[in-house]
Amino acid sequence: MSSANPASSVHAQPTGQRKPLLLTMGDPAGIGPEIVIKAFLERPHLRQDAVVIGDLNALQQALDVCAAASIAGAASLTLSPIQRLAQLGQLPAGHVAVLQACALDGLVPMGQVSAQAGQAAADCIRLAAQTALAGQARAVVTAPIHKEALAAAGIGHPGHTEYLQALAAAHLGVSVDALPVRMMLSAPGLRTVLVSIHVSLRQALDAVTREGVLSTLRILTAHFRLGGWERPRIAVAGLNPHAGEGGLFGREEIDSIAPALEQAAREGMLVSGPHAPDTVFMRARQGEFDVVVAMYHDQGLIPVKLLGLEHGVNTTLGLPFVRTSPDHGTAFGIAGQGVASAASLLAAVDAADGLLQT
Amino acid sequence: MSSANPASSVHAQPTGQRKPLLLTMGDPAGIGPEIVIKAFLERPHLRQDAVVIGDLNALQQALDVCAAASIAGAASLTLSPIQRLAQLGQLPAGHVAVLQACALDGLVPMGQVSAQAGQAAADCIRLAAQTALAGQARAVVTAPIHKEALAAAGIGHPGHTEYLQALAAAHLGVSVDALPVRMMLSAPGLRTVLVSIHVSLRQALDAVTREGVLSTLRILTAHFRLGGWERPRIAVAGLNPHAGEGGLFGREEIDSIAPALEQAAREGMLVSGPHAPDTVFMRARQGEFDVVVAMYHDQGLIPVKLLGLEHGVNTTLGLPFVRTSPDHGTAFGIAGQGVASAASLLAAVDAADGLLQT
Repeated sequence: MSSANPASSVHAQPTGQRKPLLLTMGDPAGIGPEIVIKAFLERPHLRQDAVVIGDLNALQQALDVCAAASIAGAASLTLSPIQRLAQLGQLPAGHVAVLQACALDGLVPMGQVSAQAGQAAADCIRLAAQTALAGQARAVVTAPIHKEALAAAGIGHPGHTEYLQALAAAHLGVSVDALPVRMMLSAPGLRTVLVSIHVSLRQALDAVTREGVLSTLRILTAHFRLGGWERPRIAVAGLNPHAGEGGLFGREEIDSIAPALEQAAREGMLVSGPHAPDTVFMRARQGEFDVVVAMYHDQGLIPVKLLGLEHGVNTTLGLPFVRTSPDHGTAFGIAGQGVASAASLLAAVDAADGLLQT
Repeated sequence: MSSANPASSVHAQPTGQRKPLLLTMGDPAGIGPEIVIKAFLERPHLRQDAVVIGDLNALQQALDVCAAASIAGAASLTLSPIQRLAQLGQLPAGHVAVLQACALDGLVPMGQVSAQAGQAAADCIRLAAQTALAGQARAVVTAPIHKEALAAAGIGHPGHTEYLQALAAAHLGVSVDALPVRMMLSAPGLRTVLVSIHVSLRQALDAVTREGVLSTLRILTAHFRLGGWERPRIAVAGLNPHAGEGGLFGREEIDSIAPALEQAAREGMLVSGPHAPDTVFMRARQGEFDVVVAMYHDQGLIPVKLLGLEHGVNTTLGLPFVRTSPDHGTAFGIAGQGVASAASLLAAVDAADGLLQT
């Protein structure tokens, strides 16, 4: 056997040891650091193969808050700074590894928008994305950021999805347009993938083209295949009331959506629609479909949020790596109080690992 | 006491006897006749002060279906044709009064769109509306119609709401524009009033003006006052994702919705908003608001349908009479089988009477 055999590279990563999961701490003025700490408290096994991308001081503060609130295990948890991911396996058992991602000058005021917190949150996203893009992590789970804080820090992206898309495109050396991504929101019993997200409803209407819908279907299909799911039952919502009622209330269903569905069916997808938007989510919830393609942000997010913010998960489809996040914000109103729930963040962790394990 | 005393007119309508509730049978090819019969079986007291506006043969067929399905009480129920509402009080106890509204030539095929069925459904709506407009009924509850059947019969209205608006405007001798109406949808724990309904989403965007939103708020307020509810907590949804994020994703919130809210507040309404559309329904459901104003059809209908079609109620606001209906369609797939549920129709009856009694 030649030493040049690619199989020899397994020595660099022993069999059975997974690449780490990366958890970003999110905006340090919000509940992000606290729910990240709680995730490690509630799921001790994460300490073996997950790393926090964040700021040690902010995370220690969150741990202190948890200890003061008598959260089980908080008093004895230790955070250990690491400089390289490889150090994860060398930590004492039960320690939580923190990769310092930002240069925060002390602690930020809790529950407030600040450029400093926004910059720190952005730094964490960038390091996590670059690490995943370099093939060193199995997935990225991001804690909530605050759009205004990001903007105050001069980050020109309205949210994680757009920022991660830009970082991935830069890594691949392609334009952002050449790396289309889509947001998928999941709540118990309902998944929806959105044709467009952070644009005005007027602009969202313009994004409902044959190409926009077809691209969404192809990205969705590639993502489900990644999880070993070859042919999910995809329902495509219409754009107009009653899906246009045969052209009576708008023609996008006839001119754009139906032609995209025909092509998708030719490509082997199990697609149906365009369905009346006001009942398709209910039908999916009842088990008729595995995923619903929504034509705009609120069409998909209203039903998902209504079904349970507690366990909602946001997944970015189309990136070269797996990325999920909880479906809630920074919750400034309760930040630093020890009362935030890690349920949605843990659902995001499960979604990321579930996708990789199937 | 002079015999000219207006109080003497009470003899024409004895104290304690309410004006009748009118129930239209809906499209005779759908589940309408069956759920109307079931409503009278499940709520025997309705036989005393409610009248079916329909076709005796179609209703007898539905009763026979119920009897064959061994629905409790069906075998002994009698339908009695009446020519005038005043005959209601003269029927034997337990009979159900049917006012013949249409000239159907025999029975229509079940579960199929037909011009004949559409015409019959329209005739029922017209007679019910005219009776209510003449002040002879306390409310109208309509069973489902089929839009295509209405169209096949040459009725130029896409649904009940528009048809009732046109009939009321004609009765009052005003233009349809002078009698703006709005649709309210209610499910357990959530009420929503829509700025626009059966138009394309593109046209719905154009209806989001200061005047359109303000008019909706005024019609809503007048309706709640009719029920003795002076100041409901009204949440107004934004139009764009995150209610426009301060103008970043659209300006309708700033240019149209906020100015309408300011005027509404000056008029004494308890309004708030514009709220992020994807969470406002969840918040209302949690008890924060009594009613949500939705900017377009699906924004309001997606959450209502998701929360339970079984007990959904559609109420038309702005008409000179109270009108409610179940929030489901003709269900052609199960028509004539005896399996349809009257739950939503009964919720509509309760909503109509509840509104009148508060």
